[in-house]
Formats: sequence, structure tokens, C-alpha cells
Amino acid sequence: MPYTLYIFPFIPKKCLSHSQYNMHSSDQLLKIIKSALSKVKLDGKPVELYLPISYTLDLGGKRIRPVMVLMACEMFGGNIEKAVNPAIAIEIFHNFTLLHDDIMDNAPIRRGKESVFKKWNANVAILSGDTMFALAYKHLAKSDINVLHNVLEIFTKAAIEVCEGQQYDMNYETIENITISEYIEMIRLKTSVLIAASLKTGAVIAGAEEKDVNNIYNFGEYVGLAFQLQDDMLDVYGNQDVFGKKVGGDILTNKKTYLYIKALKDAKGKDLDELKQYFSSTDFDPEEKIRVVTEIYNRLGVMDSTISLINEYYKKALTYLDAITVCEDRKIILKKYSDQLTNRNF
Amino acid sequence: MPYTLYIFPFIPKKCLSHSQYNMHSSDQLLKIIKSALSKVKLDGKPVELYLPISYTLDLGGKRIRPVMVLMACEMFGGNIEKAVNPAIAIEIFHNFTLLHDDIMDNAPIRRGKESVFKKWNANVAILSGDTMFALAYKHLAKSDINVLHNVLEIFTKAAIEVCEGQQYDMNYETIENITISEYIEMIRLKTSVLIAASLKTGAVIAGAEEKDVNNIYNFGEYVGLAFQLQDDMLDVYGNQDVFGKKVGGDILTNKKTYLYIKALKDAKGKDLDELKQYFSSTDFDPEEKIRVVTEIYNRLGVMDSTISLINEYYKKALTYLDAITVCEDRKIILKKYSDQLTNRNF
Repeated sequence: MPYTLYIFPFIPKKCLSHSQYNMHSSDQLLKIIKSALSKVKLDGKPVELYLPISYTLDLGGKRIRPVMVLMACEMFGGNIEKAVNPAIAIEIFHNFTLLHDDIMDNAPIRRGKESVFKKWNANVAILSGDTMFALAYKHLAKSDINVLHNVLEIFTKAAIEVCEGQQYDMNYETIENITISEYIEMIRLKTSVLIAASLKTGAVIAGAEEKDVNNIYNFGEYVGLAFQLQDDMLDVYGNQDVFGKKVGGDILTNKKTYLYIKALKDAKGKDLDELKQYFSSTDFDPEEKIRVVTEIYNRLGVMDSTISLINEYYKKALTYLDAITVCEDRKIILKKYSDQLTNRNF
Repeated sequence: MPYTLYIFPFIPKKCLSHSQYNMHSSDQLLKIIKSALSKVKLDGKPVELYLPISYTLDLGGKRIRPVMVLMACEMFGGNIEKAVNPAIAIEIFHNFTLLHDDIMDNAPIRRGKESVFKKWNANVAILSGDTMFALAYKHLAKSDINVLHNVLEIFTKAAIEVCEGQQYDMNYETIENITISEYIEMIRLKTSVLIAASLKTGAVIAGAEEKDVNNIYNFGEYVGLAFQLQDDMLDVYGNQDVFGKKVGGDILTNKKTYLYIKALKDAKGKDLDELKQYFSSTDFDPEEKIRVVTEIYNRLGVMDSTISLINEYYKKALTYLDAITVCEDRKIILKKYSDQLTNRNF
């Protein structure tokens, strides 16, 4: 749109050479990711090792992280073809963490189907997971040599932090009083850093400037926090058909989400006693437990508190997106995608 | 030794510039590795994640693989300082596989101490292991940019093959008749490829020619086979004080080693029946089981067969070492080290 140049003569220089019209939509990027994932070679032997990997990668999911790698790459004017392998690496890594998390959480269901741990056994899940971690690096190593050191560093740092987050999550199972800031730090490590690393990887591949690379990372971190809090909320207040998971699952398994920690902090008297009692065991009638705990949450206005915190983090995220020095037009696709992620129907 | 040049004027040119006198002994290389390992940063948080990693790396071991990385690097005239980080990466990876193997094998003891899985629990062992895998790549990524792609490829290929080997090993637990060649392929993947990859990594860092790189890899593969068969044999015929493990452990746990597979192939009549019966359960008197099975092995000459196969593989290994186009003097340290590995006291 050269026309806009005459109206806004101080628009950043980068707008001159770019236009959003040659950018891919999120649906188009998802299609590219799905196609690349379907081409990942998983016909190796022994089949007992590779079958659970195919099964895991075929379970689907929104492919948020690899889409974000491509989206960030294109936002900075990069060639997304160069970002596909690192994007696939991050998706394989993410699925590997889910596979091992399911063993640790003793979770029988993943994306509506049996988890690998349940369908096969813990040993199969451990070893297939380990192989997926190596496969992730195999794809990452296909990055261009000029960004390889950088991309490896971003990925490995995130991988270690995701493990740290999972360890905090396990620690918190047996700690009664977790502060909100401890919880936020846990979800930052477990969820946000990989989203942030995905965006950063795309930016680095596109050759973005260091300041912009840091800004998109910070944007991703805050989007990740908003996204996880939204997920916590949907587990209680979601529409099961839209959310895709059984509502109340976190309550039934005594998961200390933001909603529980906030409620425990604000509750008094009978509400506090009941909340503690219900979260001390899994031997309650499921329907009744969900109903009573949700009623306590309602009395304490936990939903509003959560929405308010989601909005706070998302607003913070947007300040980092604003600071990025590419033409505003080029940010629209990522902005819209992030809006959807942090404000899903419920 | 310029003096030898006059006696053997057709000695390879590479001898001219090199001498074994400025090379490190295996003990010196081990010291370098131990020092580098002690500097690996493991003071991160949460401590619940990093403590089992320190514990694992402090358990000791012969550090064969990292020593071999340095040894191969120096054999080809490389600077071992450039090989230390990749060497540490391979040692961390190796220890990670042991940590996860111990969960899968339900093994309470590792290097004479409680395994992580036993000392803490399976979840801690899974997650600490995953973190070690990432830490391995963190060190690998410190390789020089000109060899990074190559080193990553060697490492990731070996990592995937080690997982494949472990899966075959698990598969074989429930398969009655494993052929010798199936067993050899399993130990090639589970043990040999990482030794081969260690040597190859050192060679690549030193800038060795492709033909030499392939030859040292093949040398490592056959040394690895001889090494594992030696380990199988020591489990039955070893001197416990020297071997460091309880003799007869493989027999007690019905592990299908080369000795068992060979015995099962050769045994007839009562020996065959007894062997099958003893390997069908772990409910026998331990001392009696070890005694009777060892007597069957003795009658069938299984020890001699194993020694003969070890020698065959080691001889094959040496043909690859011979073919390497560096001065013979420079091969002495690796040759001596490999001799010791495949012919330990028993």
C-alpha cells in the first residue's frame, strides 16, 4: 500500500518493502505445518519404538508453537521454508513433554484418546519420548548454519526450563500453600517459555534485530501466561463441547491452578474449610465436588479475578508487540492469532 | 623420532609433523574429563531436579566415551580443548540413558549405589534424565561452528540408535528364541554406536579426512561389540573385586546375554531343559541357580566361544585402525586403551 506512505510519512522504514498481502494466514501456516509433520520419517525399526511416536504425532492438537515459529519468521520478512524444520522440532519436543508428563501425572487420556503410557506402558512412553527428543534435535539441526548456534541455544534453554517447570509442578502437589507468584513462575517455565522460544526462533531465522528478537520473546512469555490462565479457567467455566475436555477435571484431581490458589487465599470460614477438605482427597462424589467447589469459586469472584489477570498479562504482552519495529500491518496476523489463543470461547 | 624416517622412507607423510610424545596418556585425558565434568553447572533450581543429576554424574565410572573423544581428536592431530565440550555432552548423554534404563529395568543399583529411580522415584528419574539429555545438547552446541552440523548429526544419529537398541533389549525379554545375530545387532545399537560416535566426533573435530573418520567409526563399532561381550562374560566368569558387580547378576535376572543365547543354541537333553527352566522364573535359590547354570555353560564351553567371538571382533576392529592414514606412533595410545577395554582382568 504505497498510498499510506503519503498519509503517514513517519511510518517505520521497514513498511516500505513489506506488505501484509503476501503473508500467510494462520490457517495456511497450519496447513504447512500439518503437511511437514505428515512427512516426518517414522518408519524406522523396531516398530515398537516408532508406533507410539506416530500415534502421538497423529493425535493432533492446534500446533500453536510451530505455527508461531512460521508466523514470527514471516512477520520479520523471513522465508518460512527455512523455519519449517525448527518449527517441527518444537512441535515434536512439545509432544514429547506431554508424553512424559502423562506418565508422571498418571494421566490416562490425551487429546480425547488413550495416552501412550495407558495404551502401552510406562517403559514404552519413556523410551518413545526420549527418541522424540532426539528427533526434535534432528530437525533443529537442519537449520541454516548462520542461525544454528542461536536456534540451538534458544531451544535448549527452553527445553531445560520446561523440565524445571514440570519439577515445580510436581513439587507443588505436596505443598499446601503456594503463592500466586510461585504459581505464575511455574506456568511461565512449563508453558510460556516454549511459546516465547517459538516466536524467537522464527524471528532469528528471519534475521530480526536483537531488540526485536527480545521483544517478541517477551510478548510470547506474556501471551503464554494469559493462555495458561485461560486454560485453567476453561477447566472450570468452559463449554465442554468447545473446550474439548471434561469440565472440572482440575478440581477432581486437586490440581492447584490459579483459581484454587486465589480462592484459598481469599476464602474464609466455612468456604475455606470446605475448599481445603475437598482438595485433601479424591474420594468425594465427583459431581458434588465440582458443584460445591465451583460455588465457592463463584462466591469469591474467582472467574472475574482470573479474567482480570489474563487481561493484565495480555495487555503487557501487547506493549512488547507494539515495540517491535516492523510495519504495523505485518503484526496483524500474529495479533489476531494471539487474541484467539487467549480469549477462546467458553 | 626423525631418526625412523631414514629407516622407513615410505612412512606416511603425516608422521613427519607429528610425534606421540606430545600426546596425552589415557590417564591424563581422564583427568581432563573429570575436571571438566566437575565444572558442569548444576546449581540450578528447583534443587529437586538438579540434585539427582549431580548424584548421577558423581557416581563415577570409567568415562570411556569422553576419553575416546579426546583420544581420537589427538590421534588426528586436533586440539583436545575443542573436543572437551562434545566429550562431556556424550558422557552426560550416556549417564542419562543409564538413568532411564534403570527405571525400565527396575534396577535398584547403579555403580554400587542406589539408582536414582530407587533413591528418589520413577518421576524424578524421568525428568532429571530428560534434563540431562538437554544438558548434553547444551554442551554439544558449544562445538566450533565449522564442525557443528557434523557433530550434531553424529550425536543425534547415535542417540536415536541407542534408543532403538534399548527397545530391542526390552522386546527380547519376552521373546524366547533370539538368534545370535539379533543379539549382536541389539548390542551394536545399545552399546557400540555410542563408542563409535565418540571416536568419530573426536576425528571430525580434528579435521580428519572422511575415509579416516569412517574407519575410526568402524573401529569403534567392533571395539564396542568386543567390549559388551567381555562385559557379558565377566558377569559370569569375572572376579567380583575387579569387575565391581556381583557375579551372576545376568543369570539371576534371566538376562539373555550372548552366553545364554549360545548355550541355549548348543544345549541338548537335560542341560537344555534345565537352562530353559531356570530362565523361566526368578523364584529359584540364587546361589544354586548361578551354580547350575554356570556348570551348564562350562559343559558347553560357552566361555571359550565368547572369548573366541571377542577376539574375532577385536581383530576386525584392528583392521580398521590399521587402515587409518596417520602415523602408527599416534595410534598407540588408542590401541592400548582399547586392548584394556576388551581384555579386562577376570
